[in-house]
This record gives sequence, structure tokens and C-alpha cells, in this order.
Amino acid sequence: MVSSDTFDTALNVQEGIEQPTQVNPFLQKKRKKELSVADYVNGITGGDRVILSRAITLIESVKPAHQVIAQEVIEKCLPYSGHSVRIGITGVPGVGKSTFIESFGTHITAQGKQLAVLAIDPSSERSKGSILGDKTRMEQLSANPRAFIRPSPSGLTLGGVARKTRESIILCEAAGFDVIIVETVGVGQSETAVNSMVDFFLLLMLAGAGDELQGIKRGIMEMADALVINKADGDNVRPSELAKTRYQSALRLFPKQENGWEVPVTTCSAIENHAIDKVWQIICDFEKETKNNGFFDRNRNEQHVKIFYDWIDFTLKNNFFNKLEIQNKIDQLLPLILSGSITPYQAGNQVFALNDN
Amino acid sequence: MVSSDTFDTALNVQEGIEQPTQVNPFLQKKRKKELSVADYVNGITGGDRVILSRAITLIESVKPAHQVIAQEVIEKCLPYSGHSVRIGITGVPGVGKSTFIESFGTHITAQGKQLAVLAIDPSSERSKGSILGDKTRMEQLSANPRAFIRPSPSGLTLGGVARKTRESIILCEAAGFDVIIVETVGVGQSETAVNSMVDFFLLLMLAGAGDELQGIKRGIMEMADALVINKADGDNVRPSELAKTRYQSALRLFPKQENGWEVPVTTCSAIENHAIDKVWQIICDFEKETKNNGFFDRNRNEQHVKIFYDWIDFTLKNNFFNKLEIQNKIDQLLPLILSGSITPYQAGNQVFALNDN
Repeated sequence: MVSSDTFDTALNVQEGIEQPTQVNPFLQKKRKKELSVADYVNGITGGDRVILSRAITLIESVKPAHQVIAQEVIEKCLPYSGHSVRIGITGVPGVGKSTFIESFGTHITAQGKQLAVLAIDPSSERSKGSILGDKTRMEQLSANPRAFIRPSPSGLTLGGVARKTRESIILCEAAGFDVIIVETVGVGQSETAVNSMVDFFLLLMLAGAGDELQGIKRGIMEMADALVINKADGDNVRPSELAKTRYQSALRLFPKQENGWEVPVTTCSAIENHAIDKVWQIICDFEKETKNNGFFDRNRNEQHVKIFYDWIDFTLKNNFFNKLEIQNKIDQLLPLILSGSITPYQAGNQVFALNDN
Repeated sequence: MVSSDTFDTALNVQEGIEQPTQVNPFLQKKRKKELSVADYVNGITGGDRVILSRAITLIESVKPAHQVIAQEVIEKCLPYSGHSVRIGITGVPGVGKSTFIESFGTHITAQGKQLAVLAIDPSSERSKGSILGDKTRMEQLSANPRAFIRPSPSGLTLGGVARKTRESIILCEAAGFDVIIVETVGVGQSETAVNSMVDFFLLLMLAGAGDELQGIKRGIMEMADALVINKADGDNVRPSELAKTRYQSALRLFPKQENGWEVPVTTCSAIENHAIDKVWQIICDFEKETKNNGFFDRNRNEQHVKIFYDWIDFTLKNNFFNKLEIQNKIDQLLPLILSGSITPYQAGNQVFALNDN
């Protein structure tokens, strides 16, 4: 029910969806009814996932008209948001993120919770494609009526993906989801972006993989609220237990987290569904402890400062590049830059000279 | 001679450098003489590396006054720039980047070339530290009078590091360097940033490491102008040759590069200094071929379009956030966001309402 719509794209919203083929396909293209801001907000807050999915597509659209509606929808949904636990999950490729989320998500929904899974996956520059697009992942969870899986928008930079994911979280919360998982698919900078939008940051690890690859030297371990060593099954049980001891010692060398939380290290096997409940218990403990000591809300408000600056950044650029005289000037300068007859700095100065008048 | 100054920081430029300790150290702090734009430009174009180093520090400074001078220095150096081959080098941690650059750089300088090595290393959010800071790398090259090694500025986002590295390239070229290596230390998005500022992009690989980790699925292989399998020594010679054949087949599946260049795959051992000359020969061939068919200059001009947009982005934000009334409004709004009494979007709207008046 959900899965067919989660892969909704801006294209099929604009162009209509395919109909059965017995008639001329060119006559078949039927536009989806355009929704008003109120339609979106009522649909989302009423838990309509098809409308939620279309609203996220609207957020991902690059068309200025769509962005205006999207912004209104977000602002109107904001009062209904905030009532979920937001969990960031990262780990190197091969650590078993999809299998973990499948198993972990199934455990969460079995407790009666509604779960949304969003992905942060900045596209490669040349292929413009999403890694998620090329394989069907999390089949079991996709078919689960309490779960909603949304792949990352493709063709965007990390900043763009991060902003849109933050906004999608608001809509998912307004739609009544209790738990939101944000998964990083890329490696590198994405972890910092995800950490800035979640309450709890979970680092999946493997026994025996290089420390450097696993992000230990790149400051990722310092952001983690729990280390979970996955694939602790079969011959790998003992190495995983050894790795656990090692990481526990390593963590003692780090400064204590400001929220007083002691970062636990645990092992599990997502594929065998073993000890997944322990991970969920850790998150429940974290939520309780940090809500009691005030850190939970303080952290969210600090994240709002980041949203505030992101929003200024976006609006600033949007206002600037949508000015007709700026667009015309840039169109006129680009061939000169490309032919090498003007430096990029001279061209930039000309654009700003125009803007100052 | 160079090495002591390459680790110059904004701090010691501002605060003066330490003097011998026999006198009261508080009286010892002596400010370096402030340089004028002309001092910088003359120093750089005259090949003075101490001044070059100080100019790069200026570029990295966040102080508005420094940025104004830096911008003038860059614009004045621009006419003297452009006469180098810019090489991007990437590969997963553990591939032996430092050892490769040490060996490769020594080979290049032995041909009488002047070499500058710059690094792109966006810092982790919490530690704010550069990975390069914690170990001395490339000792031999650091002591080589024909080489100049500059670590990445720390405490910056990827966008910031990329912009500053682009500007540092201009200064290094104006200072007469023939070859500029830009090394990515991070993994992930940095490769795209580096690719957008170099003529030739070299991907270092290892036999036997996972394809996914090596960036094959993340579009990095598609950006490469050569694949070099390092550590082809000892028992690893045969696996490296096999990997070479495998990558050659894989490359045939990719669309041909628009410049007509056929991406070569080669093996080498940086630690044994073996076949490093072949890598340099590949780059010389590439330069010759793409200069003949016009791609070399066209590619640089296309990169200028990127610099143009980066510069607009930077200037736009700089102009906005340096307005006193905007600063005051933000100072007034931040506590309200942090206490949760206003949403980030409402706060953003208030800032722009002010700007529109």
C-alpha cells in the first residue's frame, strides 16, 4: 500500500501516472488533481500517506511555485510536529544498515509504533542517481502498514538533501509517526548533517574492519550516542565481543558527553534478529534520561538555530537568483566566462554592481 | 626551510611568533609586520614562500578585514596564475596517499618542477581538528626545497575548504609552482569538490578492498582520469595485476569521456618507488592530448563558472550578515529560538522583513 507511493517522483506528480495500456497511451496521461495548502495540511495531519508522499515530493521540487506551497505546508504542519523520537543511523557500506533497519524497524512497529525511514544520500555529480534507486531494500518493512520508507531525493548536494530531510521530518511528525529514522547512505560529511537533525545518533560497526574506515579518526565516533556492533553471529560472535571491549575502552578516553549520557557499546545480529530489542531499550532509556534532565528539548532548540541559518541561506539565494535582472546579467556573463574573456571575480563584481543600484 | 612555515596558523600571524625564552615571555610577543596588498602580491609573484604562506593564512582567516585584503591579493595574482598542471588525488584511508604523494612528488621535483601540495580535509564538527595535524606526513617532501606542503584549514565546512583551496591554487600558481596536487583527506563529497578544481583526477586503489568502499558505487570512479593500484609489491603484485584487469573491464562499461581520453589503469608501489614514473607520464600525455584538442582550457573555463557561483554565494552571505541591523536582529532572535518561544521559520521571516525595509 505504501511502497508504490514512496517512490513517487516529481515527474509523475506533474505528468500524471500511467494508465492500463489497452487505449492510446498518449490520451491516458491524466494529471493528478492539484492540491491546495489546506488539502495538504489536512491530509498530512489526518495521516494520509499518499498526501504525505506528495507533500515530500513538493518539498523536493525545484520549481519556485512548488517551493512557495511547500513552505506554507511546512509552517502550517510545524505546530503538529515534534512528538517523535528521531534516530540517526550510520556506518560504513557493508555494515548491514538496510538489514539492521529492517529488523530494528520491524521490532519498533511490533510495539504499535508508526515508523518513518528517511535517507540522506547526496548524489554523485555525474550519475545524478540515487544509490537507493538501483536496488529494492527493506522489502519486509516496505510492506509493513505501520512503516513509511522514503528514499533520498536525487540530484542534490548535501546541503540541499539535509534541508529537505529536515522539512520531511516535520511533515512525518505531523502525520503522526512516533519514530523517525534518518539513515546516511553516503559516507563522510553526511553524518554531521544527520547528527544535526536527530535526537539519538547510532553508529553501526563491524568487528575487524579498519578503525579509520569506520570513522573513528574522522570524529564520527565522538558524535555517537551508542555503538552497535552488527553481524555478531556465527564465527563472528567472539570477535564482536572483543571489539565491544575495545570500543568500550576507547570511549573512556573521550570527554564525557555534556548531557551526562554514558555511551553504551552493544552487539547484535540484524540478520538473526538477535539483541535488536536491546538497541531499542537503549534509545528508550536515553529518551527518558535526557527528557528528565532537560537535554532533549535543549538539543532540539539548538538544532532550530541551525534550521534558522539554513533557512536564511536558502531564502537569501532564492530571492537573489529569482530577480529577473540578475538572471539576465548572469545569462549574459556566462558565455564570457566560458570563453575566458572575463575572470569569475570580475563577472561576480558586475553582478553585484547591478544589485547595489 | 619551508616546513616550519607551512604550518603557519592564523593565530601566530595575529599574535606574533615565539621568541627565545631567556627573557620574560610576555614581553617577547612581537607582532609580525602587517603587509600591504602590494607587499603580498610582490612577495608571491617573486616566489617568496613565507609571504605565500602568510597570504594563504589570510585567505583562511574569518576576519572581514582579512578577507577584504585577501580578495584584492587574489584578484591581483589572477593574471599570473593558470600555468600549472593541477592534479587531484583521492582514495580511501589506508590506500597510501601520503606515501604515494611523497614518492610521486619527489619524482616530479627531480624533473626540476616546483610542486605545491594542498589538502582538502573538512573538519569533524566536534573536534574541529584537522586529521593532518596529528601526524607528520610526507617528511621527505616537506624538507624538499622545490616542494611546498600546506595542510587544510581546520574548522571549516566542505564548501569553505573548497573555496579557500581554489583561491590557494591561484596564489601558488602566481608564486611559480608548475604542478599543484590537491589531496582529499576526507571521503565522500570531497572528491566532487576536488574534481571541480583540477585538470586531472587520479584515483588510488587497492587490490582486494571492497568496491563499495573504494567509491566505485558512489560515482567516484566515473570522475577519474586514471586508476592507480598502489601497494603492488611483494605478495600483492599478482592480486594488483588481477585488479588492474578487472578495473579495465569495468571501465569499458562506462560511457567514454567527452574529451576522448581513455582512462588508463596502472599499478605501482609508492613505498618501493616502483612505476611512479609511469603515473607522471600518463599525466604528461593527458596534458598534451587535452591541450591539443582544446579540452584542457575548456574544462578550466567551465570550472570558472563554478568559481563565479561560489563567489556570488560567498559575497551574498557576507554582505547580508555584515549588516549591523541584521546582526542585531539575529542576536535578539537567537535566545527566543533557543527557548523554543519562536520557530526558526518565524525568526527567519522577521529577519527578512527587516531586510526588505
